Amino acid sequence: MPDMGIEDIRELFRLRPRPPDFPERRKRLDAMGAIPLAPDIKLETETVGSLRVEWSLAEGADPSKALLYLHGGGYCSGSIASHRYMVAEAGRAAGVRTLAVNYRVAPEHPFPAALEDARAAYDFLIRRGFTPDRIAVGGDSAGGGLTLALLTLLRDAGSPMPACGWLVSPWVDLQMTGGTIASKADVDPMIQKDYLDELTAAYVGGADAANPLISPLHADLRGLPPLLVQVGSDETLLDDAVRIAGRAGAAEVAVTLEIWPRMIHVWHLWASVLADARLALASAGAFVRAKV
Amino acid sequence: MPDMGIEDIRELFRLRPRPPDFPERRKRLDAMGAIPLAPDIKLETETVGSLRVEWSLAEGADPSKALLYLHGGGYCSGSIASHRYMVAEAGRAAGVRTLAVNYRVAPEHPFPAALEDARAAYDFLIRRGFTPDRIAVGGDSAGGGLTLALLTLLRDAGSPMPACGWLVSPWVDLQMTGGTIASKADVDPMIQKDYLDELTAAYVGGADAANPLISPLHADLRGLPPLLVQVGSDETLLDDAVRIAGRAGAAEVAVTLEIWPRMIHVWHLWASVLADARLALASAGAFVRAKV
Repeated sequence: MPDMGIEDIRELFRLRPRPPDFPERRKRLDAMGAIPLAPDIKLETETVGSLRVEWSLAEGADPSKALLYLHGGGYCSGSIASHRYMVAEAGRAAGVRTLAVNYRVAPEHPFPAALEDARAAYDFLIRRGFTPDRIAVGGDSAGGGLTLALLTLLRDAGSPMPACGWLVSPWVDLQMTGGTIASKADVDPMIQKDYLDELTAAYVGGADAANPLISPLHADLRGLPPLLVQVGSDETLLDDAVRIAGRAGAAEVAVTLEIWPRMIHVWHLWASVLADARLALASAGAFVRAKV
Repeated sequence: MPDMGIEDIRELFRLRPRPPDFPERRKRLDAMGAIPLAPDIKLETETVGSLRVEWSLAEGADPSKALLYLHGGGYCSGSIASHRYMVAEAGRAAGVRTLAVNYRVAPEHPFPAALEDARAAYDFLIRRGFTPDRIAVGGDSAGGGLTLALLTLLRDAGSPMPACGWLVSPWVDLQMTGGTIASKADVDPMIQKDYLDELTAAYVGGADAANPLISPLHADLRGLPPLLVQVGSDETLLDDAVRIAGRAGAAEVAVTLEIWPRMIHVWHLWASVLADARLALASAGAFVRAKV
């Protein structure tokens, strides 16, 4: 398939507005992810209790190191299937095995179900013999927030930290107080405040959206491992990325923030057809390689 | 000389408080910079009108590419001498020639004298045959703000952009509205609000501190080249770095922000004795190499 420009991808979103209900949204996101994998990628599915996880391993990657990956989808959609291509290629770029997690989603399973599953997947990696210094944790959008929640949970439990965290277009403020929620509304083809409000209502359930395990913008971030945050300039969630980078840095976490011109929410998903997506995965891969 | 830790450098600041008047401050900053250069560094001084500039070239660096460097010192002190070691080593890391600029300082020469000199030095590079795509512009602290002011000036003049900009602990808001001005006051050994107020009064003169050429936080940043911003976690100016990164990114500028744990204002100046300073120069060098 020839490469597309970001405008072509914007056009796809214009032609196919988001379906109104969760089952249709989930089908659509999974269909978007149905990209043929490179022939060298080996996949393997396992279950941890009732949680489904999926390994990927690219030729030449080091199977003794792992990227634990938490997909996006607003805590309400997304799956191993929707993000399979992106995760497998991230593993290749980082030179590590990946473990993608099919955590439970809302509204059927509100907070803290997703976080419990993320923790269970991390504990599973440890039981399988991966030491924390050989584990990277990453996620996009809601999965980026979940990554931070998992890291603070591990820190509070006194567990050794994974080697690093990788956050793509992270959603870390479920109260939507960032200035770009409004200022970027015109240029963001996917993420608007009414949609985020809907997702928040579904995920937060009876809890408080300001809970730092729900909105890690409010978390104590001290002691977290080095973080790479990647975000597009054309995102309503741009300020979530900038603010979490600033807050983590202020808490003496080593932070690298990359803002990519003209890119949209989790553009990495388009790596099979978009050069800037492959470049962003390469940059993330180099970051993970240097840490694990 | 054996390596020091950042705590040793903090101790030096505790033992030697900043002198109260500008002439003594200038002498002290120049004395701090009197570090023996590596033997392979070749220096050459020139004058551009009445402006003194200094070339440096490390062995193996490409003399057809240049890093134009604007030193810090709050627009009131600093010089070619104070930053000579840092600039020469930055040139080595980037694999380019450097041109350091002895721009006029306040209060003797308030805004826009420094900016006029920065522009004159840039024009001098062009006359010497360096094409914009082979020029990087960089600066620390006030020199970081000056770098952004120069870039917006060139953009407004319709000049082709240099290949990239490098900002170390940039001071971009001379109204000191960043939250870390207060929240980091306890941990920053050098930069406090009363000092910044004094510098602002000296530099702004009869102009307005909100002028975007004085406080580039308020500038239109569209069309600027890729920027690398490096800042320490223990700086009152941390929020200047985070906010300018966010604003530049929102304006579709390619931005990388690095926040370095426990580092203090322009720690790069200590590269002869501090590993994190050398690592930060190496990261900046890799950034410039990839762009020029």
